[in-house]
Parts: sequence; C-alpha cells; structure tokens
Amino acid sequence: MTKKVLDKDIVTLVKKAKGASAGLALASTTVKNAALRRLARALLTNQGYLIKENKKDLAEAKRQNYSKALVDRLMLDEKRIKGMAQCLLDTAKLKDPVGEELKKFKRPNGLVIKKVRTPIGVIGIIYESRPNVTSDCIGLCLKSGNAVILKGGKEAFYSNRAIFSVLKKALQSTKIPVESIQLISSVDRQAVHVLLAQDQYVDLIVPRGGEGLIRFVAEHSRIPVVKHYKGICHTYVSDKANLQMALSICVNAKVHRPGVCNAMETMLVHKKVAKEFLPKVAMVLVDAGVELRGCPKTIKILKGIKKATDKDWDEEYLDMILSIKIVGSLPEAVGHINTHGSQHSDAIVTQSQKETDQFFRSVDSACLYVNASTRFTDGYEFGFGAEVGISTDKLHARGPMALEELTTYKYVILGKGQIR
Amino acid sequence: MTKKVLDKDIVTLVKKAKGASAGLALASTTVKNAALRRLARALLTNQGYLIKENKKDLAEAKRQNYSKALVDRLMLDEKRIKGMAQCLLDTAKLKDPVGEELKKFKRPNGLVIKKVRTPIGVIGIIYESRPNVTSDCIGLCLKSGNAVILKGGKEAFYSNRAIFSVLKKALQSTKIPVESIQLISSVDRQAVHVLLAQDQYVDLIVPRGGEGLIRFVAEHSRIPVVKHYKGICHTYVSDKANLQMALSICVNAKVHRPGVCNAMETMLVHKKVAKEFLPKVAMVLVDAGVELRGCPKTIKILKGIKKATDKDWDEEYLDMILSIKIVGSLPEAVGHINTHGSQHSDAIVTQSQKETDQFFRSVDSACLYVNASTRFTDGYEFGFGAEVGISTDKLHARGPMALEELTTYKYVILGKGQIR
Repeated sequence: MTKKVLDKDIVTLVKKAKGASAGLALASTTVKNAALRRLARALLTNQGYLIKENKKDLAEAKRQNYSKALVDRLMLDEKRIKGMAQCLLDTAKLKDPVGEELKKFKRPNGLVIKKVRTPIGVIGIIYESRPNVTSDCIGLCLKSGNAVILKGGKEAFYSNRAIFSVLKKALQSTKIPVESIQLISSVDRQAVHVLLAQDQYVDLIVPRGGEGLIRFVAEHSRIPVVKHYKGICHTYVSDKANLQMALSICVNAKVHRPGVCNAMETMLVHKKVAKEFLPKVAMVLVDAGVELRGCPKTIKILKGIKKATDKDWDEEYLDMILSIKIVGSLPEAVGHINTHGSQHSDAIVTQSQKETDQFFRSVDSACLYVNASTRFTDGYEFGFGAEVGISTDKLHARGPMALEELTTYKYVILGKGQIR
Repeated sequence: MTKKVLDKDIVTLVKKAKGASAGLALASTTVKNAALRRLARALLTNQGYLIKENKKDLAEAKRQNYSKALVDRLMLDEKRIKGMAQCLLDTAKLKDPVGEELKKFKRPNGLVIKKVRTPIGVIGIIYESRPNVTSDCIGLCLKSGNAVILKGGKEAFYSNRAIFSVLKKALQSTKIPVESIQLISSVDRQAVHVLLAQDQYVDLIVPRGGEGLIRFVAEHSRIPVVKHYKGICHTYVSDKANLQMALSICVNAKVHRPGVCNAMETMLVHKKVAKEFLPKVAMVLVDAGVELRGCPKTIKILKGIKKATDKDWDEEYLDMILSIKIVGSLPEAVGHINTHGSQHSDAIVTQSQKETDQFFRSVDSACLYVNASTRFTDGYEFGFGAEVGISTDKLHARGPMALEELTTYKYVILGKGQIR
C-alpha cells in the first residue's frame, strides 16, 4: 500500500491533465459517448475486483469503528456497481453542452456575435466517502470536455483506486486522451495543499464533504472554488398550507435521509396552525426516532420536548434532530431563513400564490420549493444525470452542478472587415 | 480634503450597502428605470459643479506631471458629461435581467423547476482614472438590482467624489434605497485591504486598471474576483486573407487606441503572404508612429526594424509598439497565441471557413474574431450598454461584463406535495 505521493508527482499528474485537456475539449459527442459506454462496460466486467478491493476499505472501517452510516456509504455490491455503470450510460445520453450556442446577435455595424459553450479545462474534485463519486465525476467531466483530477478520502482509498484503474484502463481503448483522468491516491493533506496551488493548470476546484474539508479547501486554494459549506434547510408551514401535505413534506425532508445537506434542520410553523399541526407532525417524527427541540411557544404546545437554544437555529444536525419555531408571519419566516439559513434549499408549504411569489422573491437561497420536500436538491432529481456538487455560491453556478455548470463560454465574432 | 477614512468607516459603509441590497433586489423595472433617468438629469444639471471639481484633479495631474494621455482620460467637459448621462439613459432602456426565466422544465414526478435570474447582491468595483466609470457602474449595478461599492483612483479623487455626491443626492428623490450606492473616498491601499476582507457582505469584486492593481486585488481578496490581468491581443493574417482587409484591421487594432486592453500587441503573418503584406502594413504603421519589432524572418523583409526578443512575445506594450512574427501555418499561430496570449481577444483574417472554425475551436480566449478588429471587445460595442469590466477568467463571466454578468440565478421548484 503506497499511500504516500511526492509533491512533484502531483505536479506531474496535474500537468498531464492540462496537456490532455486541449485534445479532450475538441472530442466529438460521438467519441465521448462511446467512451462513456466503454467505461460503463468496464465497471460491470470488473465487478469482482472492485468488490474485493472495497472489502479492504470495509475491513479498515471496521477496525476504526466507523459509524454504521459511514460503512453503508462506503460499501460496494453488485447492485451499486450496476448503478455506477448506469450513471455513465445515462450521462452518455445527456445532451452535450459543448458547442451550444447560448446567444447570437447582430450589431448595427454588421458584426455577428455568438456566445458559445466551451469546456472549463481542468477540474479538481476533492471528496469524501462514497466511491461512486469517482465514476460519476469522471463521467460528467469527460462528457463536458474537461480533464479531471480526483482526490478521494482515505476511508475509500482501495475502492477509489480500483474504480479509477479500471476506468483508466478502459479509456485506453477509446479515442479520449487517456491522461484526461487523474487520481491523487495520497491520503495526506499535503497532497491537497499541492493541488490547490496549481492555479496555472487547474481551472476549478469542487470540494465535496464535511464543512471542515470544504473550509480547508476554500481557505487554502489559489484556484477558484465552487462549493457549499453546509445545508441548514428550512420548511415553513404557512397558515395557508394544506396541513396533510405539510406533514408528509416535513417528515420526508427530515427523516428520509437525515445525514445529507438537503435534509430539513429547522421547521417554521405559522402560529395560527401550530396548535393543530404540531402535535400531529410531532407524533410521526418522534415515532421515526427524531429528537425535537422547540422555541418557547413550541414547548408550550409540545410539552416535554427539549428547549432549543440560540445555537440550534444555526446548527446543521445531519442527524435525527429537528428544531421547531413558531412564527407570526411569512416575513418573520423569511427573516429567520435569511439570517440562519445557509442559502441551500428552503421550502414553503402554502396554497397561496401570493405567499409563494413573496417567498421566492425574498428568500436568497440556491433552491426554493413550494409544496415539495427539500430533499429534491440533487443533480439526479433535477434531471442532470448526476452532480459534481451543490453550490451555494453566487458566482458561476448555484444549486446542483452538472454538465452545464462544468462549462464556460467564449464569444466568437464574425466580421467582414469591420474596424473602429 | 479628507482623503483618510478609518477602517471602521469602511465596514459601516459596506454594511449599509448590504442592508440596502435586499430592498434594491425587489425594486421593479419601472422604479429602476425612473431612477436612472433621474440620475442622468442630475448629471446634466450639475455640469458646472462637476467641471469645477474635475479641474482640481487636472491641476493635481499637472503638478504630478502625468502623461498627456492620462490627463485626457481624466478630463471632464460638457460633451463627456452628456455622454455619461446618455449612458445612464441607455442603461434604462436595456432589458432588465432580474426575474428572467433562464430555463423551465418538468420532471417525471411532476415537479416544475424554473431557473430564474436574480441580482448577485453587493458588488465592489475598484478602478483607476476615467471618472465616467463611476456613473457607468452605478447605472449597471442599479439596473441589475445590485448595491455597489466604488473605490476610484486617487488621480480622480475630486471628480469621483463630485459625481458620486450628485448621484447620491438624486437617488434620494427616487424609490431606490439611497444606501445602494457607496463610495470609498480614501485614497490609500489600506482602504482596499479592508474592503477585500468583507466577504460576509460583499459578493463580487471587479478590479479595473493596470495589472499591478489587479494582481494586488486578486491576491488579497477573500471575496471572489472576476478580472483580466492584461490584454495581449493577436491578429493572425492567414495566407487565405484578403490582404487589403488585413491591413485595415491590423492598423486599426494597433493604432486606434494603443493604451487599452483590446489593442493588438502582436501581429502573426503567414509566411506565404509575408513578403507582399509586411512592407505595405509596415509603411502605414510606421507612418502612424508605431515602432515595429520583428522575428528573425520578419527583419529580413522589413530591414532596419528592431529585433524582437523573447520578452516581446509576452509583453503588453499599451503603447505604439508592435511585435511581428512570421508563422508557417494556422496551428503554429494558434500555438503562439495559446502560449503567449492573455486569453482576452484574438483575431484571424481569412476568407476560409475551415480556418475560421479551426481558429475558433482551438484558441482559448474570451473573444475570438474573424475579419474584424480586436478593438470591438467592449460592453458598449457588444450592445451591452456599458461594462463593469472585461473578464478573462473562466468562471462566472468571460469577455465584457454588463447587466447579465451582474446576475446569478436561483432555482424555484413548484410542487404539489412531492416527497422522495
């Protein structure tokens, strides 16, 4: 096991990616799709090897006493490998963003200006745990014409290395430059430091994982980073809500998968419906194993639950815990969300179009929902195939990032001798 | 003259901008356009005051022995003030980007997802010399719903302060929050340092000016920066060019305004046409006062001109100097541009569609021209009204940045109770 990689090896690998990126950017849609299908086949025919290598990570996870949830995220079986292959096949079916004409206009002097999508160049992705990220991101980057440098977490060391080597080998029998995909297999942070300094060769860094990893990347990168730190998602149940619908949405947003960034952390309820709604929703949530923490007004209705402290409103639990606050109006709910939220995903449950419009206009988050669970903030659920990450930044990309978010554009200007 | 501003004053001013931005983001198109027209009127009715204050800057420039070109850039007269007012009126006429539906799609589960343009929030613009930037940028930022913090150069201290105070006063008689526009009148760099640390309140920094200023900003900012460092622009005269057209384009790109970023710095000429083309173009250029520096092959044709050194190919002269290189093929020209260029604006002169396509695909610059002068890379020339800057970055915005580039988007998702 050689987990140690020298600084200069990383620079070499980054330069190889940059070198391959120009050729990859010119690859036709047909060539890229054929390559993705080839990679999908390779995953399926190497299932045995992948599962064997994954077992090493699982054994290490056991030794380290990792949580059940983490072990589950790490685990690869036939079904999951099939899912990874399917994701590559789905990506092959998606529209190629490269070359898309975003705009075309003619100036009074006769110049024709076209705005055309192009690949960004070289993308670095730094991530934790789930090994399917390795193949998902390779698929999205290749399809969008970008070279990719992957740096996975130490907990998935063997799995990531195995997936990568299978895909890299398969790439040799395609027309895609084989150095377009790179894996930094070192597990120490020094490797990340070296990668983040390569602003000459790498155009974009996407960190995925816990807030600690993301803050580390954002603070140390000389390369632009698109990211979200955390997901403190809210659902506001208006007095104009269908309360049966509100119940199902709130329970889903909290319980379906509490450890992810689009799960609900705080529920806001209008005072007029609190007495009717709270006991009903609390029963289902507590039944599911959720710990409730309420504002002073809430604990008068839901007697016996824990009191929420100021800290609770800014907390991403990533766990079966929910804070609840009763508010007097939509503006109060909006104010709470804009103050304590993380601009990720927030929902309103209401039957009022006026309230919906007001919520959409005044909450400043990447994804705003009316009458749906915040759990839908996800590249696959949006129909983007997969995602390289979710952004709460305001520049370049917001929300789930997939093929289009992996592109930039250039202007091409057609003249007939025009001068100024 | 109080040029000194305390750190805490800057933080206060930044917070005021942030506070105003939420209200501004909700302002209707009608309200914004009426305000822009009001600002335009204020410039015209305060001409005398503006010219008087501008004279103080001009006097100081004389004392400092500034170049004639710089003094000209600083100068305000009736015609230029009229131009500034016209720019605000033109901006009022431009389509409001806020609220534009960029995309709308329906998922199989019935969720309707809309991607909607929204303002970015608070924009900081750090610039040098020309005082019209003050009003142009206020116009673009207000129209796109963004609060703006301006930090001009010391050479335009009195002019910027005067323009700003006229516009700020005029804003009081509009429905736009008056704190939406802020000016940092301090002239020391410490003020920039403090501004660049306000990532909690400021969403984007656009630096405009010399490479030194821009590098300083990029290196010290905790806020995302969109920028270009310099403009090393090329024109490639192919052997398939109309040489008469090539002559007029090359002369315009070099001579029309040599001190700006979209002026040509290097001319590349195909070897087959060099003997015919170079003497003709050289005569016109030298006549106009341009100093020529040639590669070894060039100086065999243009005897007596200076030899270009390796350094010349990477130099942004911003002056009446031109480096000339003879190349053997389009790929050689492309290679030279991708190696030595600054990804700003590059042109090919050719009658061949095949060459045009190849040039457009393989040169990685923000703006690529066929048969036109690179001088057109400019917000006004593109029909964007004005520009807050030109970007050679790959993320968020590339090329001239105006209203659309001052927006981000949010997803709004309409459900009927959907859960995962």
